[in-house]
Amino acid sequence: MSDKVTIAIDAMGGDYAPETVLEGTALALAEDSSLNVIMCGPAGIVESYSDANSRCDWCAAEETISMGEHPANAVRKKKNSSIVVGCNLVRDGKAQGFFSAGSTGACLAAATLIIGRIRGIKRPALVQVLPAAEKPCLLVDVGANSDCKPEYLVQFAQMASVYAKDVYGVANPVVGLLNIGEEDSKGDALAQKAHKLMLGRVEGFKGNCEPGDMLAGKFDVVVTDGFTGNIALKTIEATSKLLFGYIKDAINSGTKEKIGAILIRDSLRQLKQNLSPETYGGSPLLGVKGACVIGHGASSAVAVKNGILVCARSVRGNAASIIEKTVDSTEDMAEGV
Amino acid sequence: MSDKVTIAIDAMGGDYAPETVLEGTALALAEDSSLNVIMCGPAGIVESYSDANSRCDWCAAEETISMGEHPANAVRKKKNSSIVVGCNLVRDGKAQGFFSAGSTGACLAAATLIIGRIRGIKRPALVQVLPAAEKPCLLVDVGANSDCKPEYLVQFAQMASVYAKDVYGVANPVVGLLNIGEEDSKGDALAQKAHKLMLGRVEGFKGNCEPGDMLAGKFDVVVTDGFTGNIALKTIEATSKLLFGYIKDAINSGTKEKIGAILIRDSLRQLKQNLSPETYGGSPLLGVKGACVIGHGASSAVAVKNGILVCARSVRGNAASIIEKTVDSTEDMAEGV
Repeated sequence: MSDKVTIAIDAMGGDYAPETVLEGTALALAEDSSLNVIMCGPAGIVESYSDANSRCDWCAAEETISMGEHPANAVRKKKNSSIVVGCNLVRDGKAQGFFSAGSTGACLAAATLIIGRIRGIKRPALVQVLPAAEKPCLLVDVGANSDCKPEYLVQFAQMASVYAKDVYGVANPVVGLLNIGEEDSKGDALAQKAHKLMLGRVEGFKGNCEPGDMLAGKFDVVVTDGFTGNIALKTIEATSKLLFGYIKDAINSGTKEKIGAILIRDSLRQLKQNLSPETYGGSPLLGVKGACVIGHGASSAVAVKNGILVCARSVRGNAASIIEKTVDSTEDMAEGV
Repeated sequence: MSDKVTIAIDAMGGDYAPETVLEGTALALAEDSSLNVIMCGPAGIVESYSDANSRCDWCAAEETISMGEHPANAVRKKKNSSIVVGCNLVRDGKAQGFFSAGSTGACLAAATLIIGRIRGIKRPALVQVLPAAEKPCLLVDVGANSDCKPEYLVQFAQMASVYAKDVYGVANPVVGLLNIGEEDSKGDALAQKAHKLMLGRVEGFKGNCEPGDMLAGKFDVVVTDGFTGNIALKTIEATSKLLFGYIKDAINSGTKEKIGAILIRDSLRQLKQNLSPETYGGSPLLGVKGACVIGHGASSAVAVKNGILVCARSVRGNAASIIEKTVDSTEDMAEGV
């Protein structure tokens, strides 16, 4: 496979679109010389942008799906929206990947309805790379499926393992099930059933994983349902935000502290940046036929850049086709529960 | 009601028992002059301790339930364990509250089986006071019930509201449902059904609450099932631990930073202490006929002291009897779902 990849980009996705998307795309093109993009959005915006940037094509999409719209309905109705047009390009083989910082729900719906699920995969799932202590940790599902059956979690684990191996180069991913205790019998009914199913079916499965283990870098892949995963992810972000706010107050509390603050400012700023969701740029959607990465609505240009690069990396890692070949069908699992 | 309260204490509960428990109890007795305690544990330990401390009685309990034992089985078999003996004292009216830093499962089982549920309460639930930005926030359930029905969540909300009002003095508690989005339709099946039931039944219910809102102090009470609540709580603790570790590394990275670190050290230490679970000492178990507070296994003497004081405060707030009078029966709710 050549290193050359083409990513379709939703110019209108995100709170600060199209500016941050256009700026982030230019940064991605500058960093990756084998990257080609097709910018999807109103012709008035994307045509001139395409002219001004090399390796940048464009495709007109005059409609935009906003954050508040019902995802599946909007995807069905707005055939000419940037999200639908971008996913069409992947379906038609004109691009291998799609990036959007727009409505997560609409992207999920469009990717599933238009690009399509990989044969045998029951539910595509969203992955988020967490900044763990020693090395990155992939949490899956972080919000695509609020209600899950145990067999879905087995597939999430298998898909994320492939992704960890082929996109992040982790030789033998250690997989855990997010749970409230170490013992096999812990957890709600879903976690207990998933635990039993994962034994013997998921390579590298090392049992339950508590949030502390997850952030301490003891696991490469941590699996849970999309409701719990989304709560865990947002709790990490909210706690970080709260703590950095407190620290700012604490070190501005007196003259001595203010001087101290000046001395450590650069280190703290670097730390904050390392921990920022921006660094990973977006969540890959595993289980669809192509690379699809969904960025945070509040994505900055740097986040957009990183999201596009993650998408290119997913294409090069060939994750979708390996997932198709390796992930267990759920047919034989239902009986085991 | 007189201010005088008697709390039964599990001398053998916690990783550093009995030392930290005895030390913490002495601190609590020193701080609260209307507090009386009954120390439950092996006579060889608690008799001499009782002699050496005023307002301290003792009750022999030669057995100990360890962390690894099956909770309900251990409670049934070990009639002479410190947890069972302590709960017996509450059931028999010799104490109004019980504190233990021992096995959470065994304490839940003993409190439910021995002290007993309040009439009409389906499931007792564990509350944890979170250190939110502006004011404390009560998260319920943090682990007593992994699998919940929607009507349980309604009762959790009502019980925690009573607790916020009568023990923490919050005039009109604002209640939220922990969820992955603000819109009413968000969440898994449990959250969606609970949302509908809570409307009109829970005073002060203001809809869904995302983890960021919870930590920003926008809610006084946040309700969820015990699985999600436990994951959220442990994620807050794990993220704090990770961040303080990173900050320590960051500010020790160079000479300039080390000088800065010395200047801000006291402020950071104070902050770390404010955020520590120690400050709140333990989780009250709501829904049983008496005050029952369960401390962290790793409780220090200060955490034990705070846990005992929280327990005394629960007794004085009269929460159990107000819960009995005010919380809705679940009978009429099941149909509504």
